[in-house]
Amino acid sequence: MSKVAIYGAGSWGSALAVLLTKAGHQVALVGRQSAEMVRMDELRENVRYLPGVVLPSGLTPTTNLKELDADLVVLSVPSHCVRAAARLVKPNLRPGGIVVNTSKGLEETTHSRLSEVLKEELSAQSIAVLSGPSHAEEVGRDMPTTVVVASEAAGVAERVQDLMMTPKFRVYTNPDMIGVELGGALKNVIALCTGIAEGLGFGDNTKAALMTRGLAEIARLGVALGGHPLTFAGLSGVGDLIVTCTSQHSRNRRAGVALGRGKPLDTVLQEVGMVVEGVRNTRVAYQLSQEKGIPMPITQQAYKVLFEGTDPKVAVTDLMMRGKRHELEEVVEMSWLK
Amino acid sequence: MSKVAIYGAGSWGSALAVLLTKAGHQVALVGRQSAEMVRMDELRENVRYLPGVVLPSGLTPTTNLKELDADLVVLSVPSHCVRAAARLVKPNLRPGGIVVNTSKGLEETTHSRLSEVLKEELSAQSIAVLSGPSHAEEVGRDMPTTVVVASEAAGVAERVQDLMMTPKFRVYTNPDMIGVELGGALKNVIALCTGIAEGLGFGDNTKAALMTRGLAEIARLGVALGGHPLTFAGLSGVGDLIVTCTSQHSRNRRAGVALGRGKPLDTVLQEVGMVVEGVRNTRVAYQLSQEKGIPMPITQQAYKVLFEGTDPKVAVTDLMMRGKRHELEEVVEMSWLK
Repeated sequence: MSKVAIYGAGSWGSALAVLLTKAGHQVALVGRQSAEMVRMDELRENVRYLPGVVLPSGLTPTTNLKELDADLVVLSVPSHCVRAAARLVKPNLRPGGIVVNTSKGLEETTHSRLSEVLKEELSAQSIAVLSGPSHAEEVGRDMPTTVVVASEAAGVAERVQDLMMTPKFRVYTNPDMIGVELGGALKNVIALCTGIAEGLGFGDNTKAALMTRGLAEIARLGVALGGHPLTFAGLSGVGDLIVTCTSQHSRNRRAGVALGRGKPLDTVLQEVGMVVEGVRNTRVAYQLSQEKGIPMPITQQAYKVLFEGTDPKVAVTDLMMRGKRHELEEVVEMSWLK
Repeated sequence: MSKVAIYGAGSWGSALAVLLTKAGHQVALVGRQSAEMVRMDELRENVRYLPGVVLPSGLTPTTNLKELDADLVVLSVPSHCVRAAARLVKPNLRPGGIVVNTSKGLEETTHSRLSEVLKEELSAQSIAVLSGPSHAEEVGRDMPTTVVVASEAAGVAERVQDLMMTPKFRVYTNPDMIGVELGGALKNVIALCTGIAEGLGFGDNTKAALMTRGLAEIARLGVALGGHPLTFAGLSGVGDLIVTCTSQHSRNRRAGVALGRGKPLDTVLQEVGMVVEGVRNTRVAYQLSQEKGIPMPITQQAYKVLFEGTDPKVAVTDLMMRGKRHELEEVVEMSWLK
């Protein structure tokens, strides 16, 4: 039995806490809001973020940061809060322990990957990232799920795999941390685009085209930034993309549908009522593609629709009217394949 | 304007005939059943297989095989009829003309790819294949669609691209004919499996896992047979897989759902009432994986469920309980990547 702490008591943090308790560990689920954590402990349920899932008896909901002195600390906070969370938890971490980040995104101001942010802030810890197609509500209900864990040190990824793998939660390792993080961070741009296509009344062919060619351009940027092309064909790439683009629950997809139906961005963001990560991610992805000189036609059109008022119909027409292309050339040109 | 003939007047043949006519060509849609073709010409609609789509005036429905003397001949017959169709059309083909095959599968007795069958039967022709996420009813309705054309000769694939590309139908070329054909032939195995998972009551995580790891094992076999790993991340791989696994119309998916709910194979096949390509494909894929010594755990479990009476629940458990794996190792070991 190992001592594990999860920082962040949202739906994903709670689902992972349940999973790790069932895996036989001593688990603390550390949240900030005292009333919420007390209620969670009394009801043995996270009524707000993971309703219907019983918290097993080995799981301790708490606000006590001292519980972060653990073999494994899982960070589960929104992507734009990762740096602040790292600073906050740092004094309580066990030196040399492992910190696994589970949120997906790039830091807006620096364009850093979140593992880079963590390395800056938590230089005494071993850093890993977890990604893949994993709705929290399904993990909480023991639906068979697969994820991938990446770290710069094979031993760290394998240790996380050992701690987290169960008969219902299959953990693969991958040494390509860059690719795993970029797949997770960029998929929301494509989810927004497939939503727009749906809102325009287009069908499954168009959505599959956007997902496949979207994946190709994510891989193109990812490879230019040091990722391995095949990581994007894996769980943190196509796997997560499929779940996000086809899910009824995805805020990014829903925002896209509204945009495709002709609503302006401001109205859409107000209606969805929460941060839509894909909007933020589109700006970062577009900026990165410009900086690196990587053609990302779908991301570019998404940027134009979101920030320059381009009509989504015109954006799709522009995509379809591009010159004739070879399916593999750009990836092959720039990849490790040569 | 070029002269184009489509052999096979089902839904996909008809949709391609409409597309090619709109692209400005003189098009003959050649079918076998005289009454049907006459009716199609009178009504200007393929009421049975492509209802609601008007056949434009430049399109001639006919039974006259002499119309196959064309610049481009598109074959659109079920995969198990390709050899017979090739023998039948051969006497009427223009020597040196291009034949594009659009059906997906492997020949059951020989395990040959369909382009290999065509090369044997039509040695005087240039052979190409067309694949990708393309429901016929959506192409018939001008929904934006992307496909890939592969041929051993770049010039042949580019010529087909020139003839078929329109503002609504984007054609990519790919020199990897092996990969393009195998992606199309093997996706139905995975569609059957995601259907089974759905029938068992599992969620989006499980389906995305089966699709992603299914893609990995298709790529593993495909690479062993000479395909390029990235082709499987493209339109004829993941693109077609997405459309097939998520479509409400897929017979393979529907058959899988029934199997997952506990119905025996015989009953399922009777109920679906037609050939379920995935059942046939599972047998061929399993045999190929055994012959070549390629681990294909999902295909193996599908084979056990279909032909050895294994309980689907046990099959899923077996998949989840396998040893710990690295996400990329097998593909990387066997691929062009080294």
